Amino acid sequence: MRGKKMDGFIPREQLLADLFSRWTPIDESELLPLEESIGRITARALYSVNTLPVHRTSGCDGIAVKAELFKNGMPDYKMWREGVEFARADTGDDFDDQYDAVIMIEEVDLAPDGLIAFISEDVIVTPGTNTAPKGSAVASGDFLIGADMPIRPSDLAALAMGGCRMVPVRKKPRVAFIPTGTELIPPQMEPKRGQNIDTNSLLIKETLRALGAEPIIFPIIIDDNELLEKALDDALQIADIVVLNGGTAKGGEDFNASLLERKGQLLHHYVAAAPGRPMAVGIINEKPVVNLPGPTIAAFFGADWCLSSIICRTLHIPVPQKERVTCTLAEDISSSPAMAILCRMEVKKGADGYIAEPRSFRDGTMPACLTSNAMYISPIGESKKKAGEIIQVELLRGREFIR
Amino acid sequence: MRGKKMDGFIPREQLLADLFSRWTPIDESELLPLEESIGRITARALYSVNTLPVHRTSGCDGIAVKAELFKNGMPDYKMWREGVEFARADTGDDFDDQYDAVIMIEEVDLAPDGLIAFISEDVIVTPGTNTAPKGSAVASGDFLIGADMPIRPSDLAALAMGGCRMVPVRKKPRVAFIPTGTELIPPQMEPKRGQNIDTNSLLIKETLRALGAEPIIFPIIIDDNELLEKALDDALQIADIVVLNGGTAKGGEDFNASLLERKGQLLHHYVAAAPGRPMAVGIINEKPVVNLPGPTIAAFFGADWCLSSIICRTLHIPVPQKERVTCTLAEDISSSPAMAILCRMEVKKGADGYIAEPRSFRDGTMPACLTSNAMYISPIGESKKKAGEIIQVELLRGREFIR
Repeated sequence: MRGKKMDGFIPREQLLADLFSRWTPIDESELLPLEESIGRITARALYSVNTLPVHRTSGCDGIAVKAELFKNGMPDYKMWREGVEFARADTGDDFDDQYDAVIMIEEVDLAPDGLIAFISEDVIVTPGTNTAPKGSAVASGDFLIGADMPIRPSDLAALAMGGCRMVPVRKKPRVAFIPTGTELIPPQMEPKRGQNIDTNSLLIKETLRALGAEPIIFPIIIDDNELLEKALDDALQIADIVVLNGGTAKGGEDFNASLLERKGQLLHHYVAAAPGRPMAVGIINEKPVVNLPGPTIAAFFGADWCLSSIICRTLHIPVPQKERVTCTLAEDISSSPAMAILCRMEVKKGADGYIAEPRSFRDGTMPACLTSNAMYISPIGESKKKAGEIIQVELLRGREFIR
Repeated sequence: MRGKKMDGFIPREQLLADLFSRWTPIDESELLPLEESIGRITARALYSVNTLPVHRTSGCDGIAVKAELFKNGMPDYKMWREGVEFARADTGDDFDDQYDAVIMIEEVDLAPDGLIAFISEDVIVTPGTNTAPKGSAVASGDFLIGADMPIRPSDLAALAMGGCRMVPVRKKPRVAFIPTGTELIPPQMEPKRGQNIDTNSLLIKETLRALGAEPIIFPIIIDDNELLEKALDDALQIADIVVLNGGTAKGGEDFNASLLERKGQLLHHYVAAAPGRPMAVGIINEKPVVNLPGPTIAAFFGADWCLSSIICRTLHIPVPQKERVTCTLAEDISSSPAMAILCRMEVKKGADGYIAEPRSFRDGTMPACLTSNAMYISPIGESKKKAGEIIQVELLRGREFIR
């Protein structure tokens, strides 16, 4: 060992490229009722089976009339009867085929006796005026949405319009998460000397959900090689991707990396990214197995770049790009040029734009770090940024929360 | 009437200001178990009741030693026995109080017989080296997170660390949505002449959910004054906010605005925003009632600026700001200077940056409009933008989906 494991690690991008060259995600889709498809990823392009309007409708609220009566200018409408010379027709309404144009209600005064009191002199009425032709909203065969797109509320509306009642979507990858460590207790318990709270089961469960995966959170596994191996075997049975948490470094409890090596292929142990440098990634039974480091902020970072990439690849979608804002750095940050280093930041409004205050997990409390609204990743090769320098940070909350 | 209702409407901001000066949302919170609080809004600032580590722990994977043995330089460690002169201690581990410093495992070679084969000459060992003091992660009383913050996965981890096992969060506002229109059929059915698909129940249901509200979707109500009034009464019984949909304009089926007027206070009918100009907003029984126009894209726009503002106000959070990107406009767009006009856009990558292609609901199909990845709102006073002009559009999908 002797310090060898302190630099020369593989960059994140290369680790992922190595994994992706050796592992092909299973391509599974399922059919879901439209109303259950929100947030899911389309498995193929979808086309309309509906034609709407089915028959031409009124394009506005108004009265349907016969355009030929207007061809020589404004007709004498004073004696027109509803249902004979005209009919009421509001937006989207069908009306009798004897009419072929609609006059907007704002251009008309209807008398209480059902007669027409007034039609604006400006109206232009020709066949089809203010009507929505058959198929003008959508026609059978029209493209609705492409493959590999997350379904948003307005996509649901488009699919409903197009008659897509069952939607082919990518299956959610099932991701097992196994927290390990004899010192861990669940968040519901009060910690005693020598104990630590398992923050990561909750962190990773909701991170996985937000990424579109189905989390399967295992109970805490104490540092016991047999129990850990049993949990890993169980996880490989039921999940598409397995995440171990803790026991990543070269410590006495470092079962996990050696377990990966023994049961499958250990691709990389240690990565040029911190916190979380001792991460291990391998493949067992053609499934990716990631050993995330235990510290909360290391698990956060590892989930952010590694788990998200694996899940997005499974779902055939690009990795989410966070919104970036330009900030003035409030304090020096030092980092190692050998590694990409995460620094959580609090972005605030200053007199001349945004200010980024580093929330180092060394100086402040860990919660202040975890609840901050942004992050900065110093790239490999960058050693230090001085207070006053301009940097681009990635937002972890919407811009509306910058105060 | 006579065209009067075509301009001079109230701007969106003023309509909201009028509503908010007359209506105060009920301030209700509830206590939720931590693991159910994801995505909810904190009702007050939260502070740690935990101190972690409870007692100082190892700050790295390594061996715990007595610093005084190092005060005159490297001691002779060849005969040290585990459990006497040193002990194994990995990150976060407690260790016996006879030790007061930790040497990183990377600086040490442990012999198979339990002795120490080597300690790097470079190590500096003083009391506390590589240890994490009591309370260094979080101390009792430390600030965890402020009031009125949406809880993200990493906030859950911070709250778990701080021992916040029950979380006070804002109650979700219950929002009733009543689709109206004799012509409407549910998306599961096949449309016949004169029928139209109710796209908006799904659109609004999932929009409300994403905003943090609890949607209560009513069945489709045909254009019958009594049935509509009954539905409105029911909605006012069970919901904090009521949304009627359809029947907004001055048509023959325009029960809704007059119903608002009769049952409470109609604040505004018509707004300087299109599509969706005939929107009506009022207050009944101290609850906001919004009549959204029926066309899908009008309902989308109304939900985007009006419903979101009402819900965010109830939840004490700022209205979400979408990410903006600068684009070259691909085609002319015309708009009325009297109104804020929504144009859905498809943003694509061009040779020199992003290009925004307007997806007008007049020219293209409605699904092409609804599934696009961005939108542009021409502000009041702006009449036309020419192809080639630079505009800022709001993204409706992540940047990673711009292709």
